[in-house]
Amino acid sequence: MAERVGFIGLGIMGSRMAANLVRAGFDLTVWNRTRATADAWAERHRARVADSPADLASDSDVVITMVVDDAQVRSVLLDGLDPVAAGAHEGLLCVDMSTIAPTTSRLLAAELATHGVAFLDAPVTGSSPKAEDGTLTIMVGGDEADFERARPLFEAMGELIVHVGGVGQGEMLKLINNSVAAVNAAVVAEALIVARKTDVDLDALERVMGAGSGASAMLSLKAGPMRTHDFTTLFKLEHMLKDIRLCLEEGQRAGVPFTFAGYARELYTAGKGRGHGDDDFAAVVEVLEDLAGIRL
Amino acid sequence: MAERVGFIGLGIMGSRMAANLVRAGFDLTVWNRTRATADAWAERHRARVADSPADLASDSDVVITMVVDDAQVRSVLLDGLDPVAAGAHEGLLCVDMSTIAPTTSRLLAAELATHGVAFLDAPVTGSSPKAEDGTLTIMVGGDEADFERARPLFEAMGELIVHVGGVGQGEMLKLINNSVAAVNAAVVAEALIVARKTDVDLDALERVMGAGSGASAMLSLKAGPMRTHDFTTLFKLEHMLKDIRLCLEEGQRAGVPFTFAGYARELYTAGKGRGHGDDDFAAVVEVLEDLAGIRL
Amino acid sequence: MAERVGFIGLGIMGSRMAANLVRAGFDLTVWNRTRATADAWAERHRARVADSPADLASDSDVVITMVVDDAQVRSVLLDGLDPVAAGAHEGLLCVDMSTIAPTTSRLLAAELATHGVAFLDAPVTGSSPKAEDGTLTIMVGGDEADFERARPLFEAMGELIVHVGGVGQGEMLKLINNSVAAVNAAVVAEALIVARKTDVDLDALERVMGAGSGASAMLSLKAGPMRTHDFTTLFKLEHMLKDIRLCLEEGQRAGVPFTFAGYARELYTAGKGRGHGDDDFAAVVEVLEDLAGIRL
Amino acid sequence: MAERVGFIGLGIMGSRMAANLVRAGFDLTVWNRTRATADAWAERHRARVADSPADLASDSDVVITMVVDDAQVRSVLLDGLDPVAAGAHEGLLCVDMSTIAPTTSRLLAAELATHGVAFLDAPVTGSSPKAEDGTLTIMVGGDEADFERARPLFEAMGELIVHVGGVGQGEMLKLINNSVAAVNAAVVAEALIVARKTDVDLDALERVMGAGSGASAMLSLKAGPMRTHDFTTLFKLEHMLKDIRLCLEEGQRAGVPFTFAGYARELYTAGKGRGHGDDDFAAVVEVLEDLAGIRL
Repeated sequence: MAERVGFIGLGIMGSRMAANLVRAGFDLTVWNRTRATADAWAERHRARVADSPADLASDSDVVITMVVDDAQVRSVLLDGLDPVAAGAHEGLLCVDMSTIAPTTSRLLAAELATHGVAFLDAPVTGSSPKAEDGTLTIMVGGDEADFERARPLFEAMGELIVHVGGVGQGEMLKLINNSVAAVNAAVVAEALIVARKTDVDLDALERVMGAGSGASAMLSLKAGPMRTHDFTTLFKLEHMLKDIRLCLEEGQRAGVPFTFAGYARELYTAGKGRGHGDDDFAAVVEVLEDLAGIRL
Repeated sequence: MAERVGFIGLGIMGSRMAANLVRAGFDLTVWNRTRATADAWAERHRARVADSPADLASDSDVVITMVVDDAQVRSVLLDGLDPVAAGAHEGLLCVDMSTIAPTTSRLLAAELATHGVAFLDAPVTGSSPKAEDGTLTIMVGGDEADFERARPLFEAMGELIVHVGGVGQGEMLKLINNSVAAVNAAVVAEALIVARKTDVDLDALERVMGAGSGASAMLSLKAGPMRTHDFTTLFKLEHMLKDIRLCLEEGQRAGVPFTFAGYARELYTAGKGRGHGDDDFAAVVEVLEDLAGIRL
Repeated sequence: MAERVGFIGLGIMGSRMAANLVRAGFDLTVWNRTRATADAWAERHRARVADSPADLASDSDVVITMVVDDAQVRSVLLDGLDPVAAGAHEGLLCVDMSTIAPTTSRLLAAELATHGVAFLDAPVTGSSPKAEDGTLTIMVGGDEADFERARPLFEAMGELIVHVGGVGQGEMLKLINNSVAAVNAAVVAEALIVARKTDVDLDALERVMGAGSGASAMLSLKAGPMRTHDFTTLFKLEHMLKDIRLCLEEGQRAGVPFTFAGYARELYTAGKGRGHGDDDFAAVVEVLEDLAGIRL
Repeated sequence: MAERVGFIGLGIMGSRMAANLVRAGFDLTVWNRTRATADAWAERHRARVADSPADLASDSDVVITMVVDDAQVRSVLLDGLDPVAAGAHEGLLCVDMSTIAPTTSRLLAAELATHGVAFLDAPVTGSSPKAEDGTLTIMVGGDEADFERARPLFEAMGELIVHVGGVGQGEMLKLINNSVAAVNAAVVAEALIVARKTDVDLDALERVMGAGSGASAMLSLKAGPMRTHDFTTLFKLEHMLKDIRLCLEEGQRAGVPFTFAGYARELYTAGKGRGHGDDDFAAVVEVLEDLAGIRL
C-alpha cells in the first residue's frame, strides 16, 4: 500500500513537487507557514491540510520538508511550535529536500533518531520548470533502506535520482557541484575577457569552445548573459556565495583543500561588495572585467 | 576551377586531412620531410610529390602546412632549404594549420607579405578520428577574403569552421580553449578529491554533475581516467603546459590577466616535475591528490 | 586616583599581564575558572580573589577578560553563572583582550550597552616572554574616550598600543595581520622549494632575501623550522587556520575579497588534513612540498 | 699582485661600482657603448679606455659586464663587434653582474668555455646609493675557485656577498627574491584594502603589522606609496613582471611550481594593461583596488 505523505513547504519549488506526488497517486497532507497558501493548494489538488507539523507527522508515513534554510528546517522538525518530532511515531521517515549545510543535516538526523525517526537529506537541482515536469535531479544521503523506501516518491518528482552516501552527503554533493559551477563560470568570464583584449571574435569563441574541450554547462548558460551584462536572476550570486562558503567549511572540517573554490569565493565576495548579491551569479563577470581593466 | 593545393606534413593528422582534400576533388601536390612517407602516401592517393617546398609552391595556388612546431613551420615557409618563399608567385596563399604561437603566425605573415604571399593561421581541434571523418573544428585568423577563398578546402577537412579575426587569432582562440580545458580538468580533479574525502560517492558525483550546472567536456572525458589513474596519452601534459604558457605570454603582451590559467600552469608544471610530461594531462590529478594528501 | 581593575583569566598570557598591572600600582581583583589558580596567583601578587565575575565587576572600575574563545568571553560577561553583567554599575568598562571574532565583539558590546557597560576589544600579539616583559602589541577597537581611559592599563602591559577604530576593529586588525603572516609563511615555503629544485643554496637564499626586498618576519622566523621540519608549536596551525577563516568571514560580510588569504586557507586546510592541526603552522611547508613533489 | 680588471657598462649602477674598484686599488680598463661616456669616466677616475671589448679582454685578468639585458651581454661577450671572446687568453674570467635569465647565463658560460674563458654570474640587489657606498648584495653562481678569485672585487663593491651554486644560480636567486617581493607587495595591497573596507585604521595597520608577524620589507617600503598612489619609479612594474616571468620559466623547465608567483604574475600583467609598465610596481595596488571595487 502506498505511503501516506506529509509535505511541508509549498513555495515555488515545493508546490510543484507536491503536485507531482498527488499526480503519482500518493495520499497527501500538507502544511505551510502561511495557512492560506496551504488551503488554496489543498483545494486545487484535493489534499488535506494539517494544523501543525506535529499533526501532519501523526497522519504520515513519510514527511517531506522543502523550506528555505537551516533555521526553518530545524524549526518545523524540532524546535518550532508543534514540530514534526512532537508527532513522531514508529516508522516515521523525514526527507529534507531543502538546501542546507551537511553538518546541519547530520545534527538533525541525530536528534530525530532520539525520537525514533529516520532521516534522509535529498536536495534537488533544476529550476521550477523541472520541478513542474518531475525531471529534477535528486541526490540523497542516508541509509540505503530508507533511500529504497523513499524511491517511489523521488521518482514522482525527479528524473535522475542517486544515492550518494550517508546523511549529509546529498547536501555535500550539491555544494561540490555548485562550487564547480561557480569556478567554471568565472573561468568562462576570464576567457571572454582575454579573447576580447586579444581581438578574438567572441561568437567564434563560444562556438568553438562549445564544440570542444572547453565546453561546459556554464559556457552554454552564462557566456551570453555575461556578454550583455544581463544579470536577471536565475540563481542569486549571494546563494552561490553561500554554497561555496559551506563547501569550504565542510572541506576545512574534513581537512581537504579546494583551492579553485577558495579563490572563486573571493571573486563572488567582490561581486557581492559591488551590490550584485541579489543578481544572477553571472555578475561575477564584472569583477573579472574590473580586474582586467576592460569591459566586454 | 578548383585551386591547386600543396600539402606539407603527412603525419597522423596531416595525412588524413590531405586525403579528405583528394576525396573532395582537389588536385594535390605533397611534400614531407621524410621523402618515403610522401611517396607512399602519393601513390595511395594518386597525388604528385614535390622535390622541395619551393617546387610545391610553384605548382600550387594554396599551400597548407601541418607540421610539429614553430621552428618547422618557419623552416618550410621561409628559412629552410628551398622554402615555400623561394617558390612564391602572384596569388599564392599559405594556410598554416599547425599549432604555434600567435606571435609566430604574425611574424610569418609579415615576412611572407614581403614575398607577395597571403597567410592564414588555421589550427584545428579534434583527434585523428575527426581528421579521418573530416569533422575537425577549424578556427581561422586572417583576411576575410582569404578566409572565403580557403573555405572550400576547410569544408573538406572540418565540420565547424569559424573565422576568428586577424592573423594569429585562430591560434589565440585555440590557446584560450585549451587553457580553459586545463583549468576545468584540474577543477574536476579537485572536486573528485573533495568528494572522496567527504565520503560522497564518486559515481553519483559524476552522474549528478554531468546532468547539471557542474557539467563540462573535461568532466565527461577525464573524470574516469583520473579515478583509475589511467594516463594513456590523448593529449600530452607537456603540450597542454606549452599551450597555457603561450596563452599567458600573449596575455602578458596584451596586458590582460588570466588568473585561473596562471594557477593551472603551476599545477601542470608540478605534473611535469613528477615525470608526467609525456602522459595524458589527466595526470594533473596526481598533483592535486598530493596537495590534499589523499589518493582517489 | 587609579582605577580598580578586575582581571578574568589567569592562563599563560593573562597571569603575566595581570602581574604587570600589579607592578604598575593598580589595585587588582582576579577571577579564574579554576579557583585554585586564582588563589595561588593572588597570594603571590597580593591581589584579591572574587567569588564570581559578578562580584569582581561590583568591586571594579574596569574589567579585563583574557580567556580562550568566543564562548568563554560570552560566558563570563553575559551568559554564564553570575556574569559580569550581573555586577554592572555606572561607569563600568569591559576590556576584552582575548582573540575572538569581530562580530562577536560587536554583539557583546551591544548587549553590554543595554546594561550601561562600555566595551573595548583589545587583542594582543606577542608571545609569553613579551607578556612577561610588558612589551606586547595591543590593538584596540572602541570609543576614543574609553581607549584613553584604559590607556594607562595598556601601557603597563604593552609597548605598542594603537587605537584602530570602532568596536571589533582591534580584532579585525589582528585577523588581517595573521592572514598576511599565513600567506607570507606559505610564500617562504614555496620559495625554499623552488630554490631547492633549481639548485640554489638555501643558506644563501635566506641571507640574501633577509637583507633585501624579499625580507619578512616569516622568513626570519619560519625558514629555519621549515627546512628542518621542526614543527614545535609556537602558534598552532589550527589557530592560524581559524584566524584566516574568521578574516574571510568578515571580508565576505563586508563584500571585500582577500584572494591570497582565500588560497592560503586551503593550504592550511590541507595541513590540518595531514594531522598538523596541533603543530606549528610552519608545517604548511609539507603541503607545498607534496604539491611540488619534493622534500626540502 | 692585484688582478687587472676590465669593466664594461658605465651606466647608473656600473659607473658607481667601477669607481669603487678604482678606490680599492684595482687597475681598471673600461669600455662603454657610448665612447664619450667612457672617456669622461676614465679621465675622472684615472682609468684606461679600451677600443673594443676584445682589446679590453686582452689587457685584463677579469672582465666585468654590467649592461642592460641578455642581448647586450651576449653581444659584448660573444656575438657583437670585436667581442670579449676575440680577446680571450689563458686565465681570463668573465663576471656578468647584469640581471639576465639563468638559462642565458648557462649558455654564455658554455660558449665562453670553448674559448677557455671562465664565467661567473653575479647579479646585485640594492639601488644606486648602495652601488655608491659599496654596500650592494651580490649573489654569485659558478665555480667555487672562480668565486674565491673574484671575491676581492666583490668586496670592493658589495657588503653581503654569497656563493649560491653553479652558473646561473646567482640569477635564479635574484629571480626568486624578486618574485617573493612581488607577492608580498600584492599581499600588502590586499591587506590595506580589506582594512579600509572593514574600517580598520590604516596607520594602525602599518604600525601593528610592521612590529609583528605580518612585517615585510614590502610593507615598510610600499604601503605608504600604495596609500597615496605615488608610483614614482624605484623599480619598474614591467621589470618586476619580467623577473616573475623568468622565474616561472625556469620553474617550468625544472618542473617545480610557484603558485603564488603564478597568480602574482597575472596581477602585474593587469597592472601593465592599465599602462603602469613604466611606473613603480607599487601600482599593482590599483589592480587589487579594482578587483575589490574600492579605492584606498
